[in-house]
Formats: sequence, C-alpha cells, structure tokens
Amino acid sequence: MAQTTPNHTQTVVGWAAHDSSGKISPFIFKRRENGENDVTIKILYCGMCHTDLHYARNDWGITMFPVVPGHEITGVITKVGGKVKGFKVGDRVGVGCIGASCLDCEFCRDSQENCCSNLQFTYNGIFWDGSITYGGYSQMLVADHRYVVHVPDNLPMDAVAPLLCAGITVFSPMKEHNLFQSPGKKLGVVGLGGLGHVAVKFGKAFGLHVTVISSSPSKEEEAKLRLGADAFLVSTDPTQMQGGARTLDFIINTVAAQHSLGPILELLKVNGTMVLVGAPDKPLELPSFPLIFGKRMVRGSILGGIKETQEMMNVCGEHNITCDVEVITPDYINQALTRLNNNDVRYRFVIDIASSTRVPSKL
Amino acid sequence: MAQTTPNHTQTVVGWAAHDSSGKISPFIFKRRENGENDVTIKILYCGMCHTDLHYARNDWGITMFPVVPGHEITGVITKVGGKVKGFKVGDRVGVGCIGASCLDCEFCRDSQENCCSNLQFTYNGIFWDGSITYGGYSQMLVADHRYVVHVPDNLPMDAVAPLLCAGITVFSPMKEHNLFQSPGKKLGVVGLGGLGHVAVKFGKAFGLHVTVISSSPSKEEEAKLRLGADAFLVSTDPTQMQGGARTLDFIINTVAAQHSLGPILELLKVNGTMVLVGAPDKPLELPSFPLIFGKRMVRGSILGGIKETQEMMNVCGEHNITCDVEVITPDYINQALTRLNNNDVRYRFVIDIASSTRVPSKL
Repeated sequence: MAQTTPNHTQTVVGWAAHDSSGKISPFIFKRRENGENDVTIKILYCGMCHTDLHYARNDWGITMFPVVPGHEITGVITKVGGKVKGFKVGDRVGVGCIGASCLDCEFCRDSQENCCSNLQFTYNGIFWDGSITYGGYSQMLVADHRYVVHVPDNLPMDAVAPLLCAGITVFSPMKEHNLFQSPGKKLGVVGLGGLGHVAVKFGKAFGLHVTVISSSPSKEEEAKLRLGADAFLVSTDPTQMQGGARTLDFIINTVAAQHSLGPILELLKVNGTMVLVGAPDKPLELPSFPLIFGKRMVRGSILGGIKETQEMMNVCGEHNITCDVEVITPDYINQALTRLNNNDVRYRFVIDIASSTRVPSKL
Repeated sequence: MAQTTPNHTQTVVGWAAHDSSGKISPFIFKRRENGENDVTIKILYCGMCHTDLHYARNDWGITMFPVVPGHEITGVITKVGGKVKGFKVGDRVGVGCIGASCLDCEFCRDSQENCCSNLQFTYNGIFWDGSITYGGYSQMLVADHRYVVHVPDNLPMDAVAPLLCAGITVFSPMKEHNLFQSPGKKLGVVGLGGLGHVAVKFGKAFGLHVTVISSSPSKEEEAKLRLGADAFLVSTDPTQMQGGARTLDFIINTVAAQHSLGPILELLKVNGTMVLVGAPDKPLELPSFPLIFGKRMVRGSILGGIKETQEMMNVCGEHNITCDVEVITPDYINQALTRLNNNDVRYRFVIDIASSTRVPSKL
C-alpha cells in the first residue's frame, strides 16, 4: 500500500495498473477517513477516459504505480463531514478530474480550479496530506465536497459519468467562446469519440450548425442520422477539406493522436478559433501559413471549473443530454482498454462498479 | 520582360533575382501607366525584409521569376490619377506589402485588406490587370492610392521604410489585443530582429513591461540599454526560461525559423496569448501540454489593414518611433542578403534607391 498517512484507515476494493504493461488487476488499498470537508461516496459507475490508458501504460512518464484510474465518477453520498454544505447522505453526485487545488489563488477563488497551478488530479495526484490519489476504478471515494457536483434527478447515473470529464472538457470552451448564445454559428468537431460526440450534442442543443471532421468515412451516417450533425468531412480527403475552407467559426479538436493542424485550420474563417482538448504525447505540427493568413487562433483548454461543471450538469438535465455509453463489468476492464486503444467504442465505456460490490472480480 | 499588358509602357530600372540562386542583378522592366486611381512614386528607400530572401531563393516554391523584391517602400509622389483623393504631387508616402485586394469583401470594406482572400502582394502578386507585380527594389512605382499611406513630416524616410512591413506586422496584433491601453502589462518579444526591435519600441512607448527572449545572450545589453527592454531571457537556458514561467500576458513571436513553441508558451500566464508573425517554411512544434494547462492561445497575424497602417504611421510620428537601419546602396544588395541570412544586421537594411537614379549599378 502506497499510503502511509495515519488517517488512511478505510479499506477499499479497487482495480489498478501496477506497471507500464498497463494491465489492470484487483487492488486493495486505504482511503482517508471522512474529514470535515469531505463526503464519502459509494461509487456506482466510472467512465473510462483515454487518459486512463495513458496513465496505465505510463505513456507520459509520470505515472506513480500502482495507479487506480478513473475520473468520471458517479455515486451516492454515504457520509458528510461537519463543514460540508450543500450535500447530504443519499445525494446523487459526480466527481471529475479535480482532486485538489490550492483554494487560495485568483483562479480557485473564481472557481476556475482547472487553472490553478497546484491542481491535483483525482488519481495520480498528490493530495493535501501528501498521499497519492486513487481514482474511480474502486468501490468507494472520499472527496472534498468542493470538488463534487450534483447529478440531476432525470439523468441516468451510468450515461452521466463521462460528462464529468469528456462533457465538461468540451462544454467549457464552447461556453467561454460564447457558442451557447450563437445559434446558427458554424461549429466543427474533429474526432467523433468520447469528447466529440458530446460536443455534437451540445452544438445541436444550442442551435449550432455542426460539421464533424473525421478520418473515418464510416462515421458519417452515425454522425448525421443518430447525432444530428449537419455535415461531415473526411479529414484525409483533400478535395472535401478544401471545399470546406473558410467556412467554420469555431472548431473543437478532440483528437489525441499526433497530427498536422494545417488542413483543419484552413476550415476556419478569418479570426476563427480552434480549441485543442486532446493531449497527444508528441508535439502537433503547426504550419505557420494557415495560422497567419486568416489570423486564426489555436487555443488549449483543460476541463472546467467546479461551478461550471455543475452548470453543465444542469444544462444536461434541462436538455436531457447524456453520453452514449457501453456499460461493462469490472471483469472486462482490460478488454475495454484494448478496444479503447483501437478507438473501438461508441462512445464511452462505463464500468458498473456496483456490480462487484462484495468480491473483486478476477481479471 | 514578363509584362505583356498593353498599358505597361513605363520603363523602370530595378533589381531582380532571376532564379533560385537568389542572386540579385539589375533588371529593366515596364510598369503600367498611371491609372485614374493610381499614384506614381519616385522611390527613395526600400527596406530589406526576410521575406525578400525567401522569395529570391524560392524557399516557398511560389516565386515567379524574375522577382523584384521589396515591400517596405518610401518615396515622393510624382503623379496622381483623376480619381485619387488625399494625395498630391510631392507628398511623402509609403507602400507596404499590399498591392491589391478585392475591395469588395467584408474585410476590404472594413479596411482589413490584409484578411482579404484575394490579397495580392506588392511583388510576386497578380495585379487586377493580370500582370505580375514588381516591388520596391526599383526606382519608380505605380500604386493604387488605396494602398498608399502618408509619412509624417518629422520622420526620416530611410528609417521609416521598414515600418511598412516590420512595423505594421507587430503594431496590428498589439493594437488588436488592446496592449496600447494596458500600461504595466507584461509583453514578451521573441527574437530581436527587424520586427522584434520595433515591437520593443512600441511596447516601451505605451508603458508596457517588456521582456526580450532571444537565443543570443549577446543581445541582452543592446536590448536593455539601447532599446529600453526591462528584462531578457536566453531561450536556450532552461533555468532562465523556467524562472519566467507564467509571468507574461502577451508574447509576440517574430522568429522565422522552425522551433518548438513549448518553452515559450510556458512563459505565458493563464489565458495568455502568443502571436506568431514569423513564417517558418517548416511547421512549428506545438506540444499540447503547455497549451492546455493554462488555456493558452497561439494566434497568427499578418500585416495590418491600410487604415491601421496609416494609424501606425501617425503613432510613430507622435512618439518619434522609427526603425534602426543600416542604409546601403544597391551595389550592396547581395552582400546584405547574405548578412540577412546570417541575422547579421541591426536591425534592417534599407536600400538608398535614389543613390542610383541614373545608371543601375553593377552588382
């Protein structure tokens, strides 16, 4: 057990990767006692983000093994600390990527915790007490209530889980760039995966004209018929891409693999913005000409603040937006990771944690 | 002679590159008669931009030889067409990079000609009559008056010339991002060359805190003592660069060689913007992490509109801002290009065109 902090007394069943093979197996570990600002959550579901794969395999060289992945967590509160406000036992809640932040900088004070330079993640982070954080591939979580959000009653807990990362990651830049008050504006979504399909849903919910840009021609039917996208461009088809030149106001680029931004930038109108939300481990290629001609912009965005995450949850409740998920049992985590690596999922695996409440499954 | 259009009747002495060796030699060619919207300009000075080198050597594969470079032109009007307003014979004027635009799109109508998708350059462009444009390495220019600006009386014509490209290229994004109304804001200038040194001057004129970032430690003294920069970072020194992390509000990156944007992005505060104004012929490396963490922005910018160029000229007149130049005679163009290639100039060569009015010098 990596935790040595004295008050880490609660035994938890989870699933961890123990080395860079990335193979996940059952793991018994300790969590801290429920502190005065904490809530304890019985985890029901946990989404499987592409980031989990990166950490499990130590792709970025920063994994502290054993790592318990998972930052798209939904569950029910079973305990609340003395200083907790706004939450009670029995509440349906969600926890995303943020495990801790400094609570004192200009960003934390403005609930832009995602911009705090001391941001710590829900797993593979360092909590205030010095312990390594363990994520949602586990049956129970102790979370500071300042990083917890309510889940609207009308939404199912499994399909909501990925909103805690995939959802807020695309919601935040769309909101910041005023897209939700701009019906008719032309949105491009690059990559139709966990993040991309939610971006399409937000776009359509707010009246945008949505073009999906994907290297997979096979996704066109799905994008248009099921998700309601207005147009589809095959990114590897130069004729299609050139035909779309200078047509889009805003692009969300969700692709997590290395690629050239040039052909995608050309799709933007003058002064248009592409927001990158994927995190390829190798640098992207940024040709200067399509950036300079047209004065285009490439911006990074990471997650969203907690207040904004709650706002997104409420919006999803009002518009009945959830993720398209494939619910699996913990036994299937390794197969799911393999399929995730091959982009073989529509659009998010969600682990039914509660299906294994008593005895951890063998993997 | 490349021009075949009937009204190209005026013989002009100039200097051209005839092949990708990039070697410049005297060149006699024809310009159009002065049309009703045209002014004829006796060229006095022409700055030598890095772009001239790229075109002369056909670095971008788009040069139409013979090419007469030069888009930092100052001179005196000798003739005005019947429909010309605001200019008269004897006026001191400047012409920059823009030779023609559609005059009809939303950008042209708003004097953002630099954003017109039919933008044609002062040289190596295609004018409305189908002829190839020839630039300012020549004794006379016929220019549509809508792309001509006045030069303030108090500024010397040689040191003003580079403002027409280098100056407006940095002025426009600084203005657009509101830096001229933000005294005390922290500006970074990457690369202390033709563009960079003017950016420092604008920054100091408007009360910004200016940090120069350069790979040449030898430029520190010059940057601070002569140009008044407040700080200096050696871009190849990781300790210095890390020490400057999250300190700058805005960066102008003038480097025209391929480089990684990562270490420079780290200098920006959260939500900070780096504007690229250089045009490396190979793609830049854009690592996703420094972009995503901190939600930073990389934007391209190209030149400025004509109205804005006049505004810059007026600002330069008020603040007595000109470029630091080394004035040369046309005989020296080839040596100057070689030195330019080695960044061996502080900070701009300017050709004294009038010094060769009668007979073209042998090169």
